[in-house]
Amino acid sequence: MKLSFEKQALLSAISIVMKAVPSRTTMPILECILIDASDEEIKLTANDMELGIETKVKGNILDPGKIAIDAKLFSEIIRKLPDSQVWIESDDSLNVSIDCEKSSFKIAGRPGDEFSYLPYIEKEHYISLSQFTLKEIIRQTIFSIAANENNKLMTGELFEVKDDFLRVISLDGHRISIRRVQLKDHYEDEKVIVPGKTLTEISKILSGEADREVLIYFTANHILFEFDDTVVVSRLIEGQYFNVNQMLSNDYETRITLNKQELLDSIERSVLLIRESDKKPIIITITDMGMEIAIQSAIGSLKEEILIHKEGKDITIGFNPKFLIDALRVIDDESVDLYMVNSKAPCFIRDGEENYIYLILPVNI
Amino acid sequence: MKLSFEKQALLSAISIVMKAVPSRTTMPILECILIDASDEEIKLTANDMELGIETKVKGNILDPGKIAIDAKLFSEIIRKLPDSQVWIESDDSLNVSIDCEKSSFKIAGRPGDEFSYLPYIEKEHYISLSQFTLKEIIRQTIFSIAANENNKLMTGELFEVKDDFLRVISLDGHRISIRRVQLKDHYEDEKVIVPGKTLTEISKILSGEADREVLIYFTANHILFEFDDTVVVSRLIEGQYFNVNQMLSNDYETRITLNKQELLDSIERSVLLIRESDKKPIIITITDMGMEIAIQSAIGSLKEEILIHKEGKDITIGFNPKFLIDALRVIDDESVDLYMVNSKAPCFIRDGEENYIYLILPVNI
Repeated sequence: MKLSFEKQALLSAISIVMKAVPSRTTMPILECILIDASDEEIKLTANDMELGIETKVKGNILDPGKIAIDAKLFSEIIRKLPDSQVWIESDDSLNVSIDCEKSSFKIAGRPGDEFSYLPYIEKEHYISLSQFTLKEIIRQTIFSIAANENNKLMTGELFEVKDDFLRVISLDGHRISIRRVQLKDHYEDEKVIVPGKTLTEISKILSGEADREVLIYFTANHILFEFDDTVVVSRLIEGQYFNVNQMLSNDYETRITLNKQELLDSIERSVLLIRESDKKPIIITITDMGMEIAIQSAIGSLKEEILIHKEGKDITIGFNPKFLIDALRVIDDESVDLYMVNSKAPCFIRDGEENYIYLILPVNI
Repeated sequence: MKLSFEKQALLSAISIVMKAVPSRTTMPILECILIDASDEEIKLTANDMELGIETKVKGNILDPGKIAIDAKLFSEIIRKLPDSQVWIESDDSLNVSIDCEKSSFKIAGRPGDEFSYLPYIEKEHYISLSQFTLKEIIRQTIFSIAANENNKLMTGELFEVKDDFLRVISLDGHRISIRRVQLKDHYEDEKVIVPGKTLTEISKILSGEADREVLIYFTANHILFEFDDTVVVSRLIEGQYFNVNQMLSNDYETRITLNKQELLDSIERSVLLIRESDKKPIIITITDMGMEIAIQSAIGSLKEEILIHKEGKDITIGFNPKFLIDALRVIDDESVDLYMVNSKAPCFIRDGEENYIYLILPVNI
């Protein structure tokens, strides 16, 4: 095999597929990037068996072939080369040479045939949305998946296509995050659970531009994202997701409207008084006079007052401040509405159109 | 005590003195910042007994007094407050309240009298130079102090004032770094060993501006840096520094001149093939044809060719690439000169005026 590339083009492609290289594995071939130039185009692939990424890279095929190269070493070498033409050549003994200007690296490759290709995906059921939208809804929901694997379903997010809306849901037993976007065309209904790790990695690759599309294909066991020159394939999480609709309610006894940034700043100050060992809640007291946020810990105490517009009953309610911070940070509106029933029932932060709903369980005080 | 400040002024002052707060200590009072407003000005002080920093901060003294506050908590609280007027008040029971707009923190302070003030320094012997120059010479030499305390002298840098030059020297047994700057006035000769930690911390505080001065005062046991509204006092390292002059020599058999960035880039590529466990040297071969840099390790091999201007004998010599990288990174010249005698004698990188000298011992090959 003998290929040549512009350094920057090769480096960008490597950075994309690197997202599917596992940080720890017992199978050395999984730590590799496959360069496949056996056909008319050059493709780089990485695959950790849960998540696989393939991307095309522009270059010249002087002699077709394929070879697998340790991903980390390959990436570091290309990054450090001068911004110039890079030649990659491999022989039958899997010796790889990488040449650029007056630098000449020689490293050992692995046989391309050992590499697991991405699974074949039937491209029947799909939706289309902008890269910007996908990147945003991942950011706005990913924080409330569960961190540990005790409940596998909670480590993923529900992607639900219904009535021309995409609804993305995550929950961890203490809170639920829901984002909804209207799709531009009519698509068939779908309901799949996508691993959180896949979404985290894909949002690092998405350009985030509003005028560039991503196609999402669904099959029984896989989801495939196609955008620019890249294809990302991930296994789905098997099982029946939680019935979130029955946890939602529009009833409330107290509704307040307030400045989002003021609320967020106040709660962020309150966590300064919490050390990891003690799980002190913040106490929110809402009266006609306004809202008071208070916390008392071994370190000290804090009182904050915030102007609100209030409707309904007075209430005193406790929260884990982190949960409020997580939700408020991803809401872009200047003003937010909070809906509460009593000090034991969930609090909802949602907009009028229900394009976002954040449910947070209170803490007993 | 009752004081008021502009938040940003207070925060800047805290950031400065924080550099002298030890990260781990068994004495809680050392983890504090002292606010001293017992006189007509407000001073913040931190002191880890080796290094002490005091800085003045603008503010209003409504009621004089002093109090010590946990540095980390204090810094975090002030950072998170709105950009507005901050009130700090303490009572006889050492309760501290920090108020800003509608936020009100209450934390516990410590008695200001427990705090160790900075030692009194006789301001007799001093030099003056620009903050920029001091910051630069620290950066250009600090990397070659010894990391461990086996030889205490090597953990500091020699500051030598002689014939109206300041010479700063560090060495770790494998290499020596020397920077020399001409002083603007005539000063008495001085020779002190300043702890590396002091220099690292002070270079974080120095503004680095060429038109702002720093005064350096010397006593038998201490060094004092005075700049802007800040005073930094550090203990000196006791002992007789190494006789560096007898390790220097201007003899050479081979002299080469080459582009600094090209050399640095080549050597930086070579370290990609070194894992921490194996200490492979790079082999440099200099002939009339040019310079070849080669490395061979368990991971692979690299050959680099560099254009040079050569004078004298051919030579093959091995180096720990890290030592060359450290020196080349802090040389700002476009072109550098390397002087060598043979493969066992030190290599010198130095400019014509000897404003910098980097001595690096070769590795046996």
